[in-house]
Amino acid sequence: VQPVAVHRFPMSAPDDLSGFTAALDAGTIAPDRILALWCKTEGNGLRNDWTRAYADLVLRTALARRLDKAADALRERIAILVSGGSEGVVSPHLVVIAGAPATGSSLPGLVAGTAAGAIPHAAVGMTEQGRLATGLVREAMRQAGLTPATTRLVFVRAPSDAARAGWDTRARAAGALGAAVALGELADDALADTAYGVRHELFCSRAFVVARHDGLLQQVLVLGEAPGGNPAFRIAHATLADPIDAPGVAGILAELGLRAAPQLDPAASRRVVAVIAKGDAPLSGAVRGQRHVMSIDNDVAMHRHARAAYGTLLASVIGHTACLVSGGAEHQGPADGGFAAIITRID
Amino acid sequence: VQPVAVHRFPMSAPDDLSGFTAALDAGTIAPDRILALWCKTEGNGLRNDWTRAYADLVLRTALARRLDKAADALRERIAILVSGGSEGVVSPHLVVIAGAPATGSSLPGLVAGTAAGAIPHAAVGMTEQGRLATGLVREAMRQAGLTPATTRLVFVRAPSDAARAGWDTRARAAGALGAAVALGELADDALADTAYGVRHELFCSRAFVVARHDGLLQQVLVLGEAPGGNPAFRIAHATLADPIDAPGVAGILAELGLRAAPQLDPAASRRVVAVIAKGDAPLSGAVRGQRHVMSIDNDVAMHRHARAAYGTLLASVIGHTACLVSGGAEHQGPADGGFAAIITRID
Amino acid sequence: VQPVAVHRFPMSAPDDLSGFTAALDAGTIAPDRILALWCKTEGNGLRNDWTRAYADLVLRTALARRLDKAADALRERIAILVSGGSEGVVSPHLVVIAGAPATGSSLPGLVAGTAAGAIPHAAVGMTEQGRLATGLVREAMRQAGLTPATTRLVFVRAPSDAARAGWDTRARAAGALGAAVALGELADDALADTAYGVRHELFCSRAFVVARHDGLLQQVLVLGEAPGGNPAFRIAHATLADPIDAPGVAGILAELGLRAAPQLDPAASRRVVAVIAKGDAPLSGAVRGQRHVMSIDNDVAMHRHARAAYGTLLASVIGHTACLVSGGAEHQGPADGGFAAIITRID
Amino acid sequence: VQPVAVHRFPMSAPDDLSGFTAALDAGTIAPDRILALWCKTEGNGLRNDWTRAYADLVLRTALARRLDKAADALRERIAILVSGGSEGVVSPHLVVIAGAPATGSSLPGLVAGTAAGAIPHAAVGMTEQGRLATGLVREAMRQAGLTPATTRLVFVRAPSDAARAGWDTRARAAGALGAAVALGELADDALADTAYGVRHELFCSRAFVVARHDGLLQQVLVLGEAPGGNPAFRIAHATLADPIDAPGVAGILAELGLRAAPQLDPAASRRVVAVIAKGDAPLSGAVRGQRHVMSIDNDVAMHRHARAAYGTLLASVIGHTACLVSGGAEHQGPADGGFAAIITRID
Repeated sequence: VQPVAVHRFPMSAPDDLSGFTAALDAGTIAPDRILALWCKTEGNGLRNDWTRAYADLVLRTALARRLDKAADALRERIAILVSGGSEGVVSPHLVVIAGAPATGSSLPGLVAGTAAGAIPHAAVGMTEQGRLATGLVREAMRQAGLTPATTRLVFVRAPSDAARAGWDTRARAAGALGAAVALGELADDALADTAYGVRHELFCSRAFVVARHDGLLQQVLVLGEAPGGNPAFRIAHATLADPIDAPGVAGILAELGLRAAPQLDPAASRRVVAVIAKGDAPLSGAVRGQRHVMSIDNDVAMHRHARAAYGTLLASVIGHTACLVSGGAEHQGPADGGFAAIITRID
Repeated sequence: VQPVAVHRFPMSAPDDLSGFTAALDAGTIAPDRILALWCKTEGNGLRNDWTRAYADLVLRTALARRLDKAADALRERIAILVSGGSEGVVSPHLVVIAGAPATGSSLPGLVAGTAAGAIPHAAVGMTEQGRLATGLVREAMRQAGLTPATTRLVFVRAPSDAARAGWDTRARAAGALGAAVALGELADDALADTAYGVRHELFCSRAFVVARHDGLLQQVLVLGEAPGGNPAFRIAHATLADPIDAPGVAGILAELGLRAAPQLDPAASRRVVAVIAKGDAPLSGAVRGQRHVMSIDNDVAMHRHARAAYGTLLASVIGHTACLVSGGAEHQGPADGGFAAIITRID
Repeated sequence: VQPVAVHRFPMSAPDDLSGFTAALDAGTIAPDRILALWCKTEGNGLRNDWTRAYADLVLRTALARRLDKAADALRERIAILVSGGSEGVVSPHLVVIAGAPATGSSLPGLVAGTAAGAIPHAAVGMTEQGRLATGLVREAMRQAGLTPATTRLVFVRAPSDAARAGWDTRARAAGALGAAVALGELADDALADTAYGVRHELFCSRAFVVARHDGLLQQVLVLGEAPGGNPAFRIAHATLADPIDAPGVAGILAELGLRAAPQLDPAASRRVVAVIAKGDAPLSGAVRGQRHVMSIDNDVAMHRHARAAYGTLLASVIGHTACLVSGGAEHQGPADGGFAAIITRID
Repeated sequence: VQPVAVHRFPMSAPDDLSGFTAALDAGTIAPDRILALWCKTEGNGLRNDWTRAYADLVLRTALARRLDKAADALRERIAILVSGGSEGVVSPHLVVIAGAPATGSSLPGLVAGTAAGAIPHAAVGMTEQGRLATGLVREAMRQAGLTPATTRLVFVRAPSDAARAGWDTRARAAGALGAAVALGELADDALADTAYGVRHELFCSRAFVVARHDGLLQQVLVLGEAPGGNPAFRIAHATLADPIDAPGVAGILAELGLRAAPQLDPAASRRVVAVIAKGDAPLSGAVRGQRHVMSIDNDVAMHRHARAAYGTLLASVIGHTACLVSGGAEHQGPADGGFAAIITRID
């Protein structure tokens, strides 16, 4: 069992690590215990968003110095998510997930588990990637002491093939449906790659998958609550039916003992340390029967509209804007919606 | 006293008047009783947004045919607002405000008043425009049987000068501060034009001002509740502190007897017939202390980010996406926020 | 034989017809002799470009008044092209092609021919549309007294299906390849619809095709030089190998007796009355072996980059910026390039 | 006298240094002799373009490894220009200017000179910055053995203040007018800072100035031909009257013995090793009297339109697309135009 702590730092630019490095210098975070870095940057979150590679390099360079390793080696060791696109109210920030000391207690608290494995190039975006993802998620849950019932977030960094159109969607689909099978949400036949990007009714309720083009390593991080976990933190998740599903967000907070009616009060809002969500423009072309134009705007990409919407939805219920909202939500929540996971700190 | 009814129609495109013309054909709306048309289109809402002129022409052409008048003449008679920019979840739609039969009752209900006057070109964006706006708002309130206390929305269509940089801001400032003086929210010296776009602490809590370049007519429409008004409709308003001020929105609904905790239920949501709001990206560069990047994005204009945020805020509390959100909120609500007015139908 | 004259008017906005209506009022252009209107507007030229519908409506309304017809009826009678997107140096303008008096001479000059026919919905984007286009082009050439050798431009307004993804490309392909067969550039089997958008080596050297969603009428206009044509105008065309093919543009001008080395002198430049071209970003991803990024930019659409490039190419050789450049150049010139036609006035 | 050689490498991404590092590994370029690095990346070239900082970091990191220095120290030593924005045909690439062995000859050839000095913060964008720039340019020319007559390019990296609106323009103005005074093109009183961004008739014909926010060092690099220079390279420059000034570009090539009528042949085109130019959208709102819409498009920034235009202009005359075109051309060429410098290799 790996108990973990969660830290959040504001970023004044994609290369601003001042809060993070101060915490490293102060010993608040031990660099060798870091399991994951989640970063929301101010790029466009699309093909030509170089804030991702830039922030990724800056993060790895800062850690490499302290760990006396090559920056490239850290990519394998730490699950790094740099998500571009801080539309609307979304505020760029960094979330650090790091191992915490064993509690010696059997009370439940926040735990993490990780697993990774290289996949054959031919497997990318195919059933085989999904099967391998299923195995990694099971291994990570086992390591974390989590069951499908207690797992609240599955983060998958899926290898994709930039040279093939549509392959990012397929890679995300394989990762999400692989997670759904591991969690018992779907049967094995959901991994059939003919369904990827097509059978939108198949989805995982708590997989956050990103497709990346920097190698063939598939990485998984799971988070949940288990005996022996860090009691200072809690986590919950839910699917969101659409980009205005405020009751869905309030429901997650209610599970965490917080009441948003319509919004958390400032003290409760401060306790929300990490928010991570997926959502695209509703495929139906409408929100509750009313037409949206996010998908037919050739000046502003659909994903930028959708992140602005989901970011404001979350922020308006939670009461602050440090929300990591990401597009490319295929099979990650229902077709017209998405999902969110929220981590709170117990004061 | 002019009792009014409010109708809303979805638009499948900037030139889709099918719902509206069906209501005209069916006699549900009498064309000669129309006081105002509010339209949200899917343009960019910025200088090169031609959906506004297009929808305006299509609307006037449709009415001109029925009223046997020149389309140009209708611009003076009806307060037409075509607001471009349906970012995020915002759904394009048309709102029609039309005179309703006298009730013969002294119970309060929705009323409207209008006033208009040409202003000298030299007055545009100057103290004189503000003074004239004050007079028009007073005249419209008098006509409607409204007092400052019962007036809930002041719509001003302010003439501006496209050839002078910054003049739209000045024209909106003059209209908003002129309304604030008429409503007793600010003293006369708030009209000093040196404050326009500078002293952001001066604002009107319920003025919605647009700057237009099609002549020198300044038009005002006021809405509120007064004895003899249409009891089938209610209206309320409030300022919004920032783009995630869900409690502010819920407060307006509470005044109307509706509870959003965090969101109206479907039946209550359907009763919300019109939502009209103003808001820009917070001038402070932050939302509740957390940096936003809406104002430093050179790919997507600030106003597009801000409308996406305010639109989602309103929709996530109200439960539907037919919200008319507009940028250019100078002196219309607090510097980091804006304001909203909501009209409900009594079932 | 229909001799024609060509007029060009600058446009200060998509609804500015002042130059055109002045010419109508002055009798310079007889409204009932107008065969085609080509308009370049300042929209984005993509799905959500409403300047096209707006300019189209304004043009038809202005003519309907003078012709005492319904505006809608004019769509069938006049081949209207409103092309959005005035990127880079491109200047919005209107070109009018109108019938001129018979010359009574056998000397060659500018002639036009038109043909149109409704197509079944099922034919859109299929071989059948291509075959029908072939027939229309032959009929228009016959009417104009043109042969494949003397035809310089085939304008096709092709019906498409907005509801089916990729259908605009197919509709343009059918129109272009249909023209190529009529011109003897390709054999009948080029109409096989399996090749549409796939076999880029199949193309027409002088077809300008637009896909529109306003009905099922397929319209064709051909221009060329024939005995009895208007000797005051000349026309030539050529394919362009890529977006920097200045020699290709200079070659067209050389056919017209004008020398650009590197640019026409002001007197010669003034003689260029109409320029109409097609071009997309090179499919190979490179221009003469050097990578371009037009197709991987998610902030600015590929077509906007490409029109900026082709517009500047043409303007820098011709010496003025009233060039109608359009994207969606599938099968209209070589895969990495496009084509242009130029009309000059003899002083 | 510092003879120099010029190398150019294509870049497949902002972090692609493969060509450059291969040349370093092969010894073709000695890292300790590098004087300047010019890089054109595929960002938006505006405030939120992080490809610049990213490429800058990657370049300095690669060199720091080989020079055994801190990456930060290299910023002072090497004049690094990372210019974002590869609109239209422009191809991302890297140009390296490096010292070459002394020739021992008195024949003229390519030479460079550099100078740098920190300026007080209060001097930024003021007359004092201009005066200091004048001194640096004189020092760099002296070092290079150049006179005003033989200097062909003055590159200035000017410190600016990101926190003050309009200061980038002022910093570029000071740098450009400072260079103009050093070159004898303008009298000392041109440095009056009241003219910055206002008196557009004051300009330098060969200054390329960028404003940067990474310190207070003002850096100057001059290039020209002088006795003892590298005879393998030649350089020339000229102002461009507008974005379609093909004769202006051809004139530069003619000075270099190359004929473009309208375009260089492939062999001559290959000899053009570096092209560096400045240009904005014409301030008059028109190109040769015809309206452009580059400055009133709120979807695509003016600079992106302008770079697309100048890039295509240069490429269509030169015959290849590795042209470094930059916006922010205040006082760098005439108000409606810009300037270009071209370096050729003697085969």
